[in-house]
Amino acid sequence: MNSDILREKAGKLWENYVKHEFVIKMKEGGLDLESFRYYLIQDSKYVEMMLKSLLRASSLAPLSYSTKILKSIFDTRDKGMEVHSWLLSRLGISHEEIQNTGYSLVNYAYTRHLYYYSTKSWEEFLAAWAPCMWGYYEVGKFVKDSPNELYSKWAEFYASDVYKSRVDVILEALNSIKYSESLVTPFINSVKFEIMFWESALKKEPTLIIGD
Amino acid sequence: MNSDILREKAGKLWENYVKHEFVIKMKEGGLDLESFRYYLIQDSKYVEMMLKSLLRASSLAPLSYSTKILKSIFDTRDKGMEVHSWLLSRLGISHEEIQNTGYSLVNYAYTRHLYYYSTKSWEEFLAAWAPCMWGYYEVGKFVKDSPNELYSKWAEFYASDVYKSRVDVILEALNSIKYSESLVTPFINSVKFEIMFWESALKKEPTLIIGD
Repeated sequence: MNSDILREKAGKLWENYVKHEFVIKMKEGGLDLESFRYYLIQDSKYVEMMLKSLLRASSLAPLSYSTKILKSIFDTRDKGMEVHSWLLSRLGISHEEIQNTGYSLVNYAYTRHLYYYSTKSWEEFLAAWAPCMWGYYEVGKFVKDSPNELYSKWAEFYASDVYKSRVDVILEALNSIKYSESLVTPFINSVKFEIMFWESALKKEPTLIIGD
Repeated sequence: MNSDILREKAGKLWENYVKHEFVIKMKEGGLDLESFRYYLIQDSKYVEMMLKSLLRASSLAPLSYSTKILKSIFDTRDKGMEVHSWLLSRLGISHEEIQNTGYSLVNYAYTRHLYYYSTKSWEEFLAAWAPCMWGYYEVGKFVKDSPNELYSKWAEFYASDVYKSRVDVILEALNSIKYSESLVTPFINSVKFEIMFWESALKKEPTLIIGD
């Protein structure tokens, strides 16, 4: 299956991503709250551009897959938004703050990377997108029993059957396409971006890049 | 004029870009050769994606401007390539090495940023593109008397009338459009990327992002 091949090609990078120091600290409950806050703001910005890229890529996809994926995303979005809003409110993050905070360099690179592939081909977009969706399911399962209520709540959504159903349709679409070496680069780069994304939150890197 | 407004909005960032430590070290001749080598490889990768983005954006432009700009780029490309090839050969950089070297994070972010605007609008693409073309003319004039032959030769091209004619048509196109606040973000982000681009070469940052 394409998904297995790609994951194997990523090698130990995949483990570095889903068992990153940031993730382990969430699981153990000791993650610095400011890093989590930083992460949540960057992630909110990421999700917006990710969805725009998904819509753009969808116009290049076989309708049977794109409608299935979009339906699954929209059917489960309420649950995700509910957890997200609860977290934002607990951390005192307003939509204005998200809007007024710039991108970290890695977040800007990662979102433009998704966008780039979203205009190039549906197949390459899927490969670029899969690490984020798929990896978070594993991260969710790993973190969900965190003693810290914020982190367990955050993880619960990604570990849920609702979220799993999203991942399933995405991987089904990815596995339905003909394997090509051109899928490897977008997939592996995205895994690297995920790793750098956690890193940037641990280090609270500058968020100097403005714009959408 | 749009170009003056944008440059003023960039404020001291513009000076940080065109008089960056990297630039000053080139002018004085003391720039570490390994940093220059690193820079040249990244720049070669940059130029390729920049030209692809220009072509993509050109399809959205009024033909009178896009043809004028493309003609000016192609008319002067031989001279630029001549200097570029001379530098690559002096530093023992092959096309394979350029191909096999990954992008630095800032270079990937910057090239995808240009690409992003190249699909969004001609106007915003011009604003995103101008800092690179315009700034290098100033950098060229500043560096061209460097005691180091490599740096003076490098700068000579950017300080030349041939290069100036490119900048003129690009700024003419930028100044022909109606001013809009939406030009500010792409312009300023590009200035920031230029600064980070010099930084990354001084620090020889990791070049982990593969692909085109």
